[in-house]
Amino acid sequence: MSLSFLSKSTSSFKTNYSMLSRRLSRPLQMTVDTLNPKVLKTKYAVRGTVVIRSMEIEEEIRKNPNSYPFDKITSCNIGNPQVLKQKPITFFRDVLSLVQNPRLIDHPEAKNIFKGDVLERAKEIMFHVPGGVGAYTHSQGIPYVRECVSKFIEKRDGYSVDPNDIFLTGGASQGVKDILTSLIRDNNDGIMISIPQYPLYSASIALLGGNQINYYLDEENDWGLSRSELDRAIQKPLESGVNVRAICVINPGNPTGQCLSAESQKGIIDFCLENNLVLMADEVYQENVYYKKKKPFYSFRKIALDMGSKAKDLQMISFHSVSKGFIGECGQRGGYYQTHGIPTDVKGQLYKMASISLCPNTGGQIMTSLMVNPPKKGEESYNQYIQERDNIYNSLKRRSIKLANTFNAMEGVTCNMSEGALYLFPNIRVPEKAKQEAKKKGINPSTLYAISCLEQTGICIVPGAGFGQKEGTFHIRTTFLPPEDQFDDVTRKLSEFHKKFMNKYR
Amino acid sequence: MSLSFLSKSTSSFKTNYSMLSRRLSRPLQMTVDTLNPKVLKTKYAVRGTVVIRSMEIEEEIRKNPNSYPFDKITSCNIGNPQVLKQKPITFFRDVLSLVQNPRLIDHPEAKNIFKGDVLERAKEIMFHVPGGVGAYTHSQGIPYVRECVSKFIEKRDGYSVDPNDIFLTGGASQGVKDILTSLIRDNNDGIMISIPQYPLYSASIALLGGNQINYYLDEENDWGLSRSELDRAIQKPLESGVNVRAICVINPGNPTGQCLSAESQKGIIDFCLENNLVLMADEVYQENVYYKKKKPFYSFRKIALDMGSKAKDLQMISFHSVSKGFIGECGQRGGYYQTHGIPTDVKGQLYKMASISLCPNTGGQIMTSLMVNPPKKGEESYNQYIQERDNIYNSLKRRSIKLANTFNAMEGVTCNMSEGALYLFPNIRVPEKAKQEAKKKGINPSTLYAISCLEQTGICIVPGAGFGQKEGTFHIRTTFLPPEDQFDDVTRKLSEFHKKFMNKYR
Repeated sequence: MSLSFLSKSTSSFKTNYSMLSRRLSRPLQMTVDTLNPKVLKTKYAVRGTVVIRSMEIEEEIRKNPNSYPFDKITSCNIGNPQVLKQKPITFFRDVLSLVQNPRLIDHPEAKNIFKGDVLERAKEIMFHVPGGVGAYTHSQGIPYVRECVSKFIEKRDGYSVDPNDIFLTGGASQGVKDILTSLIRDNNDGIMISIPQYPLYSASIALLGGNQINYYLDEENDWGLSRSELDRAIQKPLESGVNVRAICVINPGNPTGQCLSAESQKGIIDFCLENNLVLMADEVYQENVYYKKKKPFYSFRKIALDMGSKAKDLQMISFHSVSKGFIGECGQRGGYYQTHGIPTDVKGQLYKMASISLCPNTGGQIMTSLMVNPPKKGEESYNQYIQERDNIYNSLKRRSIKLANTFNAMEGVTCNMSEGALYLFPNIRVPEKAKQEAKKKGINPSTLYAISCLEQTGICIVPGAGFGQKEGTFHIRTTFLPPEDQFDDVTRKLSEFHKKFMNKYR
Repeated sequence: MSLSFLSKSTSSFKTNYSMLSRRLSRPLQMTVDTLNPKVLKTKYAVRGTVVIRSMEIEEEIRKNPNSYPFDKITSCNIGNPQVLKQKPITFFRDVLSLVQNPRLIDHPEAKNIFKGDVLERAKEIMFHVPGGVGAYTHSQGIPYVRECVSKFIEKRDGYSVDPNDIFLTGGASQGVKDILTSLIRDNNDGIMISIPQYPLYSASIALLGGNQINYYLDEENDWGLSRSELDRAIQKPLESGVNVRAICVINPGNPTGQCLSAESQKGIIDFCLENNLVLMADEVYQENVYYKKKKPFYSFRKIALDMGSKAKDLQMISFHSVSKGFIGECGQRGGYYQTHGIPTDVKGQLYKMASISLCPNTGGQIMTSLMVNPPKKGEESYNQYIQERDNIYNSLKRRSIKLANTFNAMEGVTCNMSEGALYLFPNIRVPEKAKQEAKKKGINPSTLYAISCLEQTGICIVPGAGFGQKEGTFHIRTTFLPPEDQFDDVTRKLSEFHKKFMNKYR
């Protein structure tokens, strides 16, 4: 199947409708010249130019296996672990297969195939899901699953939470878009986002016609965030009358991998209270924390509630997802957001918005219940679960260190270690000639670097330009997800490519 | 779990934040007074006031089983068959459970549990889904599934279609919203929708700030649609300078159940060509056709292609879903749209929009492949599949007739037969006193009827006001989905309620 239209669409916005006659008095309605300009303006790098090019190369290799000096694309552009051979957690999939097919639960062979606690869990879920997975659920999500989430949050933070504050979503992206839709009225509504950021935020703000306000993470200080930077960033927008509505904070960071300190988080909450901003806390990497003692994860909710009455005015939404952590169940599209300090009638509006899509998919909802309520100590599946979890977790940590060391050994490259999440965001001091070459091609030097790397190694990484980078600095974002038995090959290829690139443009 | 905030939010838009102190200089950012007004304006009746009231009643009954003269809610508000005990197709669920849990495919017991073609199909799917169901897929959907869809459409219409014209979605609703997002730039962009309509359309247009243009289906003629009505409806908007972009046609109809004649469809296509409109063809009920000889389903695509060169300028999007038909897999959230006459670069923009949500859930995608590619004659599962399909289909038809007859036997009620889809939309000549009572309460008489019915019988139906109705007429929409063994009870309760209602307001 040819994907050629994708490359055409990115290389040019000019409409090709030679096959469509133009006898008509009014212009065709679906042309790029007449589409919603907010759609045209929206950029999404994680699946943008470089990735589209990688799909074309994949297609070319399929047709002619010798067309490139590699035989497959290694997708480091996106946190999609299972496509790189990470195995799903057995307990989760056992339960999911049973709820998809309840006749198996009572099958005489079931006991020979499934552990006792797997069968029990599947029965428990079926009891709480009227009509099973084929029925629309409550638009806010299955009450049972929201109760599981609520218990998980209480255990994590030490403070209880009302299940009515939980909204299940089809992945965190859906939730972020719904909240931004409710906040952004026009271009005078400002949303603060970090630079670098995950492009879901810039894309959604552009699509909704809002005003993107950048604050910068401090690369010199492990991508930390200081109160003074926030004060600097909001000053001009406030002076020019922008209604700053919310701040998005990704912790642990994407693409930067930082774990914010409790001190820094308190500063952010103070900043939100003083400026009366909604805190949108993207906490989807809360399980991907690699130095738990030195740099633990604290939820913004716990930090706020620990601050006592001072923080009682805080309005916050926290996002979570089944796509990340050590489970990486991206394709299931499950997740939730939890509201804090949001008035009842606003929650009614959020419910209404959710209801237009009827409900998140049931498999994703049930996967969310499993993520927040895994096998417990003493249960039959517990040991296997812990073993699978720790194997993945330890391997992620080993690979993150190995890849960061690889980058730091390269000429003109510095790379902060990944304290959390699934990415590295190395800083590449691109030679002057490469900058000129990029300028000639009308692309960012980081894009030149990423495209060259793709075409020479088959490794697909994302240009830093897609996430935002401080003026004059150039980065790429890569996951550290290639399988461990192929990892040395990846690091070797990256090192060799880098040498060639530097030599070419020296 | 209390759902009380939902009723508060519908009964009043006033913010209750007594618990939030107002010491702050700037107002709180998430209050209904400051939310996006397009969100506030959006209405979605299928899960609106009456349904929210039904959830409260359900809660009240749970706490006090004797609080109402019925012991459960019968949800006739939404086409959600499996919650009303419709059984899923065995072949589909067998395959879905295997792809969720591939270890079962090779399990020594597998052959004792699954038919051979089930195992084969699961293997085929796994081969085509890199990383399995836990991995993000191509944002436009798994190429294998798009190829299955493409073959299905070719077989249905007799004309081939490029798999690149297929976009998989999380249910049809997602696709409709994406297309409308790409079309609507501002309030001067008009979208024509039928009255009555499915409120997804009015809600999405409101949320996007577009201009809703109504055309009317002809209740006297089995909810048919005439060219002259379309010409009438577009005249004023064109005269006042509205840029009419697209027309949405639901066929078979929701809530009306009509199957348009080929003649009527040709008229609509002519109308689109002359006025240069995008035809948004909601064809999710294409399998729900109960008089296949007298009133068959033709896809708009087939009708257009049969018209030859005349129709080569047509721009069209056709929507389909796994939620309807005889399979009713609502909770899986699967579906697709197929583009026709849409330029390559516009498809690139649609791809980009899809990519912001990464991909539709894999279970829904695979369910879509099963829907369009069921067991074939000669395969082991074929007979069982046909039997299950026909049982559901025949039962739907029986129930639709029985319920229409029930309505037509009521005083002051007329109801067109359901030629297709899952609904009836009877016309209720509400007594004058009931209109006065509704006026006093500030609600539409159809809402008074639906709420009264809910509170007296536990049967949840939706007021016609939520779908739109000709000035001075009043309807309710109901599914005919209650299980057949409870169906006589439902019709009896509806008849008794109607008598009481008429007597009360006579």
